[in-house]
Amino acid sequence: MKILLHTPHAEDAPEWIAALERALPAAHVRRWSPGDTAEADYAVLWRPPAELFVRRDNLRAMFVLGAGVDALLALERRAPGTLPSGVPLVRLEDAGMAEQMAEYAIYAALRYMRRFDEYELAQRENAGAAPWRPLEPHARDAFHIGVMGLGMLGAHVAKRLADLGLSVRGYSRSKKTIEGVTTFAGASALPTFLDGLKLVVNLLPSTPDTEGILNRDLFARLAQGAYLVNLARGTHLVEAHLIEALDTGRLAAATLDVFAQEPLPAAHPFWRMPRVTITPHISALTLREPAVRQIARKIEALARGETIGGIVDLDRGY
Amino acid sequence: MKILLHTPHAEDAPEWIAALERALPAAHVRRWSPGDTAEADYAVLWRPPAELFVRRDNLRAMFVLGAGVDALLALERRAPGTLPSGVPLVRLEDAGMAEQMAEYAIYAALRYMRRFDEYELAQRENAGAAPWRPLEPHARDAFHIGVMGLGMLGAHVAKRLADLGLSVRGYSRSKKTIEGVTTFAGASALPTFLDGLKLVVNLLPSTPDTEGILNRDLFARLAQGAYLVNLARGTHLVEAHLIEALDTGRLAAATLDVFAQEPLPAAHPFWRMPRVTITPHISALTLREPAVRQIARKIEALARGETIGGIVDLDRGY
Repeated sequence: MKILLHTPHAEDAPEWIAALERALPAAHVRRWSPGDTAEADYAVLWRPPAELFVRRDNLRAMFVLGAGVDALLALERRAPGTLPSGVPLVRLEDAGMAEQMAEYAIYAALRYMRRFDEYELAQRENAGAAPWRPLEPHARDAFHIGVMGLGMLGAHVAKRLADLGLSVRGYSRSKKTIEGVTTFAGASALPTFLDGLKLVVNLLPSTPDTEGILNRDLFARLAQGAYLVNLARGTHLVEAHLIEALDTGRLAAATLDVFAQEPLPAAHPFWRMPRVTITPHISALTLREPAVRQIARKIEALARGETIGGIVDLDRGY
Repeated sequence: MKILLHTPHAEDAPEWIAALERALPAAHVRRWSPGDTAEADYAVLWRPPAELFVRRDNLRAMFVLGAGVDALLALERRAPGTLPSGVPLVRLEDAGMAEQMAEYAIYAALRYMRRFDEYELAQRENAGAAPWRPLEPHARDAFHIGVMGLGMLGAHVAKRLADLGLSVRGYSRSKKTIEGVTTFAGASALPTFLDGLKLVVNLLPSTPDTEGILNRDLFARLAQGAYLVNLARGTHLVEAHLIEALDTGRLAAATLDVFAQEPLPAAHPFWRMPRVTITPHISALTLREPAVRQIARKIEALARGETIGGIVDLDRGY
């Protein structure tokens, strides 16, 4: 069995190759390089270039090392026919990512609910003045949190927040049921979902439908002085509308892990806004061992003629 | 029924009086002022002066508006006989405090485990340089958290951390059992409890035995670059040893809610240490409604001749 691997950086490849060959003793894994059109049964891909897909119709499956496949689907939209037709495109299901997302979301929710961000700012900005000033925390019962996107990641995040006894709503395209979470489905339910939310956590898939969904109109439906946490994709957010909402106080603060352009350029105003917290796309790292275990199990299942989970619906976009 | 109330600030009194009288329709509540030696059945106290206790042997119980009674017991140590003998001293049991402590501890644990504090520092200190630099998070399985003190507050904090799937140990004077938590009891077990901990959360009661327990010797037993979160009392910590441990890298960072002197003086070095995070004694605020409900239920129970929880053992100190 031949497996083609693409990692953007050559130095990442050896450990992935070793882990895949340990998990699949019958496999020979090679790192793809430009010009390689030799035979392969499977591809394991992290940010592949279009050229990799030339004459790859005989692949039995392509595994993406992430939960989102928007970058690959964008290649196909720009140049239809780039992706080999009839080859299943498989995204990672969890592999430790959901728990990491939950950690991030819980951290950000508690930080804002208890106003820890304001204590930190006060300490850093007025160290000499010793700003010993207790602040009224937001009332737990009125701190309504809305999780947008209830896929593998969003559903787990919503559940974890609800397990802490927080007030949680969930929004998705099709109706989901999550214990302790009030769920809303479809665009027509969006205004009701948003009404009076104090914190929005975005975990929507990135599709043409959801591009720019975090905009002025959405912010206007939230509670005054609400908070935004974007853990999905930079394209979900209209950055100029966020800056405007923070300037007017419509939103109090935002924590952003993803950006329209990554790395976020040095000149970007976000870096210098005291109420914007930036992390460099680290909300959920792909962990090698669980990812390799999952891909190996799926390859074995395909070999036995079984169906597998995580196959992307190309029309839906996730 | 006559209830004596002491609040350090006159402006806090009216709402407490109204809430107590609503909860106990037969009660007349008055704010104590110097010189008031008139009759009373119960006292509800927040930072009372020694003078309040003169000729109070006929009180049926004294309720303290907090979980810790160290300040009151210190009055008694300085001038034995200050507290009326034979009058039960009752501290608050929970009243919303345990959940607030859990929120704080979870926030601090996730902040350090995921290195969010370092991202925040990098953003604030190098905004112009756009520090887009992913950091290796601490491995979840190796991020051992130790909760010191497993009373009403510590036990709940340990449980909540364990519920998130984190690695949690607990330490207390007498043996406690908490689901998902490895517990240790007594001074002889302290070294084993501490061995290799990456984060210590202190929730011990403040007694002569625990004074200065967070010191150089304790820090030496933790993992290199460990973290400290002090939510109990400033007297638990030897401040000079913490500064030394942060300087040498023995400890990576600390979050402190309590201090030997509060408010923390403007000249204190903690204010200007980038790896020390300061909050102004807000980890668990006494919430009026649950506190009043609890005190009213206990007064009713005493009136029926029943026993109540939360009575302080004056010898043990909590």
